[in-house]
Amino acid sequence: MYTPIQKLRTYMADNNLSAFIVPSNDPYFSEYIPDRYACRGWLSGFRGSAGTLVITLDKAALWTDSRYFVRAEQEMAGRGIELKKLKMPGTESIEEWLLEHCPAEGIVGIDGALFALPEFERMREALHPLTIYVDRDPFDALWEERPDLPNAPAYLLDERYSGASVSQKHHAVRKAFAAYSDFIYPVVALDDVAWLLNMRGSDVVYNPLAIANAAVTPQAIHLFIECTQLPAETRLVLEKEGVVFHPADHFASFLSEYPNEAERIITQERWSIALHLQTILEQGLTITSDPYRGGCIAHLKSQKNQTEQDGFRIAMKKEAIAWIRLWRYIEEQLPFGTLTEQLLASKIAEFRALDPDYRGESFFPILGYAQNGAMPHYAMDINGSTPIKAEGFLLIDSGGHYLYGTTDTTRTFAMGPLTAEQKRDYTAVLRGMIGLSMAKFPAGTRGALLDILARGPVWSVGRSYLHGTGHGIGHFLNVHEGPQNIRMEENPVPLAPGMVLSNEPGIYVLDAYGIRTENMMICVQHEENLQGTFYKFETITRCPIDTAGVDTTLLGEEARTWLNDYHATAYKELAPLLTQEEATWLKEKTKAI
Amino acid sequence: MYTPIQKLRTYMADNNLSAFIVPSNDPYFSEYIPDRYACRGWLSGFRGSAGTLVITLDKAALWTDSRYFVRAEQEMAGRGIELKKLKMPGTESIEEWLLEHCPAEGIVGIDGALFALPEFERMREALHPLTIYVDRDPFDALWEERPDLPNAPAYLLDERYSGASVSQKHHAVRKAFAAYSDFIYPVVALDDVAWLLNMRGSDVVYNPLAIANAAVTPQAIHLFIECTQLPAETRLVLEKEGVVFHPADHFASFLSEYPNEAERIITQERWSIALHLQTILEQGLTITSDPYRGGCIAHLKSQKNQTEQDGFRIAMKKEAIAWIRLWRYIEEQLPFGTLTEQLLASKIAEFRALDPDYRGESFFPILGYAQNGAMPHYAMDINGSTPIKAEGFLLIDSGGHYLYGTTDTTRTFAMGPLTAEQKRDYTAVLRGMIGLSMAKFPAGTRGALLDILARGPVWSVGRSYLHGTGHGIGHFLNVHEGPQNIRMEENPVPLAPGMVLSNEPGIYVLDAYGIRTENMMICVQHEENLQGTFYKFETITRCPIDTAGVDTTLLGEEARTWLNDYHATAYKELAPLLTQEEATWLKEKTKAI
Repeated sequence: MYTPIQKLRTYMADNNLSAFIVPSNDPYFSEYIPDRYACRGWLSGFRGSAGTLVITLDKAALWTDSRYFVRAEQEMAGRGIELKKLKMPGTESIEEWLLEHCPAEGIVGIDGALFALPEFERMREALHPLTIYVDRDPFDALWEERPDLPNAPAYLLDERYSGASVSQKHHAVRKAFAAYSDFIYPVVALDDVAWLLNMRGSDVVYNPLAIANAAVTPQAIHLFIECTQLPAETRLVLEKEGVVFHPADHFASFLSEYPNEAERIITQERWSIALHLQTILEQGLTITSDPYRGGCIAHLKSQKNQTEQDGFRIAMKKEAIAWIRLWRYIEEQLPFGTLTEQLLASKIAEFRALDPDYRGESFFPILGYAQNGAMPHYAMDINGSTPIKAEGFLLIDSGGHYLYGTTDTTRTFAMGPLTAEQKRDYTAVLRGMIGLSMAKFPAGTRGALLDILARGPVWSVGRSYLHGTGHGIGHFLNVHEGPQNIRMEENPVPLAPGMVLSNEPGIYVLDAYGIRTENMMICVQHEENLQGTFYKFETITRCPIDTAGVDTTLLGEEARTWLNDYHATAYKELAPLLTQEEATWLKEKTKAI
Repeated sequence: MYTPIQKLRTYMADNNLSAFIVPSNDPYFSEYIPDRYACRGWLSGFRGSAGTLVITLDKAALWTDSRYFVRAEQEMAGRGIELKKLKMPGTESIEEWLLEHCPAEGIVGIDGALFALPEFERMREALHPLTIYVDRDPFDALWEERPDLPNAPAYLLDERYSGASVSQKHHAVRKAFAAYSDFIYPVVALDDVAWLLNMRGSDVVYNPLAIANAAVTPQAIHLFIECTQLPAETRLVLEKEGVVFHPADHFASFLSEYPNEAERIITQERWSIALHLQTILEQGLTITSDPYRGGCIAHLKSQKNQTEQDGFRIAMKKEAIAWIRLWRYIEEQLPFGTLTEQLLASKIAEFRALDPDYRGESFFPILGYAQNGAMPHYAMDINGSTPIKAEGFLLIDSGGHYLYGTTDTTRTFAMGPLTAEQKRDYTAVLRGMIGLSMAKFPAGTRGALLDILARGPVWSVGRSYLHGTGHGIGHFLNVHEGPQNIRMEENPVPLAPGMVLSNEPGIYVLDAYGIRTENMMICVQHEENLQGTFYKFETITRCPIDTAGVDTTLLGEEARTWLNDYHATAYKELAPLLTQEEATWLKEKTKAI
């Protein structure tokens, strides 16, 4: 009985490879990947979302980030794999390690479908004098129990939710590429395909996606999908909108056989070296770089139309109702000492599921009580069944998909008395969240410039958080969506009306507590005058914010006014949708401070 | 009698050149250049600080920015030079224009000493298929009345002002390049040379610099300077510190003849293609890029030592006294109707000159009354003698050099009654200035992240300003100093303790008024805890701020407290240095609001 690593080494020896690199993505460069592509997990045992495994004929090492140091050690125990801690002093790069452990003439194998062109080029330079062999997925032959690709039915999202027909979207792409008289634009990311075709699916956890590729030409949208995934009547609807169907595995051949005269417009970050070899290099063609940061479809998708924006507003009310029921449940059950993180994780999903338009969670929920909340990516894996007591903070970060939009909310609840330091920190986070909510800024402003509005109050109390302040959010699509964001890191994409963003500063005190307060906002027009066009944010979250943690002497007058207005709006809009008892409870929670 | 342009065209024809590009810098890439290098001004008549002239055999065009559109038209009138407005829609680039107006085989001439290597490489690509001829200053032969290079005496800055000896600075550079066992590091920028040698001079307006180059090796600092500029006893002092003297014009030959084994460490932004050709390419050598952003010396120079910081604090008190006398003068003279911008410009210099340690203005002062203040770079060229009335705003931006440090202050005074809009705008600018002053931030923070603290309150009232918020300031050196700044544009340089920065948000309402309030700050340690090392700004300006323009209902509680504290400190520190009458006046100006 051979271990997976032994099987791979035999394959490597047979094929004259000195090493093999196994990353954690799939051919669509997805955030959540189908089990079929979990080759790194199969080989190493480590099943966290991020990590690259490198195997030589006699060594193995896995590079992952600080979120996973403990878990990776545990899951890989006994397999002879060295843990390489990313961003820690003294950790060599994958390329440095390979140069040290491979013979000078060595060949390094990769699955070409899993490496984007710029990453491949960077790696090729860094590995010199080693060479790279661009392999085609060798795990099909090696991994006997390998799961099949998922093949769940896909469905169309009605235009009353999407706000734009497929032919309108086709028109938008044509317009975006008006500079090119003839072109073919391959669409690789699953959420880009979903947006373009108004199509949703269930092939991936947390993201409502079907596995499919597309290619846009001036004449048509070509869709590459397993024929069993779309019923005939759905296909008819799409065909009427000018969609041409192809078998899923004809994507590469279609691209390579398409008339040479057409410009090949490529979003390089999601264009694998495998596809590049097959469809560009072997044909002796060249590519035109997609001029839109993150890709043309991501660019179009990021600015939600009026229907999508209105849908988000509805989704946030439904979301608020689920949270109110959760919060009331917590208050009722807390005295019995039976509450756990895991129980509450199932409860919030249950409360959401009461709504007929709910379509599942938008990410694995984070529930962290007391010190568990201090880990921003805490996954309830060890301590999730610890009883929650009537003291300290409980942090809950959870979201759902509704037909109208995707939600993402974080609240930190005071379970009982708080220390002055805890209140100071809670107030600093709230003040930051509110500071960003109130921003006014001219057209052209990048998210990085706004970041400190949320982060500054946290820094002012001698704390800092290492994650971004805000990410883009898809419309009944991925909860993390580009190209816009609000982070310290430079990102040249300007914020624009219709973009939906999270606003989530936090404070994490190791072994003690975690605080995060997260609302969702839409970037909207503010004013236009001789000095420019100004935008602002419209906060669309309606879930109440626990005022028990607020130290009003530290909140500041403007933030206090904002909070009271926020709560007044929440009460006014939600009360009619609640039972009398719930409305009375909400009245109390939203009273002005 | 030939015009300058005709002379250049004859030279071009004789040398088979289709075009010649004349930029506005000197071989040291200075902000203020000696008259000798004002070739663009000689050719075009336009003497503004920024602009590039391009001459072909039958056409001429000048590219400049919006500050100079009016002035360039006026000064170039009748010379047949087309004005190209930078950053305006439809303005072609210099390269596009040359490609249109030169024959396909054309050769474009440049003075190689005036183009830095990366700029040259960029231009070479953009000009293809035209080629570039790297010429050696042809204006020596063409420009008969060309001014000589200045040659004013240089002098040493005592260590009680500079806080570090030349040998300590040599040690710091060696340490910064410890990775290289043998190296030679050419120092081109005049202020880098001045810092390294603790030397000051008077060869350039507003910057206390001598024209000199240097080269650092592990063994010595080599100084290239006209022998008449430094008296023998000064040379002796420097020689004791390990400085080796060379004639000014031996710089290139020294670099090219230096042993080949030494790494040539080059700050590319200030490394001309002429020097590169002579000292690197012709020798078949390669360069090592200076790993410090903006250059190693700029990096070391930017973090002021304790002596320099203390000196700045003294300079700011002297500066405040001059401003107080100016302000009192304005108040006394205003009723007589004889005040003009030009008169006040000479007055502030006069008040500063009462101090024996004053060494001249640090830049051309900006005094803009009413609508003149709406031009951020207004230069009193047309309206400077217009009487100042008892209404509206008077903006004054001025600074000086003291042996202890360089100053830069802007104040906007209410000359009489203000409208509600004027007060709102004045308060927004002040609130922004104070917001940035109060920042706390962890080590590693870039200036761009802080910019909105000053700019945000301006945006919030529907205004915007197009200049940066803060620039680095030299210690009795250039008032604009890199590599740090606080601007919207990305700049990867993190702010670090000892850096001195301006803080100067503004509002400019075309044809109406301009407001800017500028203080100077030192980045200092704030706190160190488990979450990181935090910095803050210490405001070192002591000049009072006119509270007549403040609308306290819009200022906010925190800014109001800050302003009152600022004024209390200013009064406490300055009163002992003033006459009784002045102190009484200051008491009133600094009273809490």
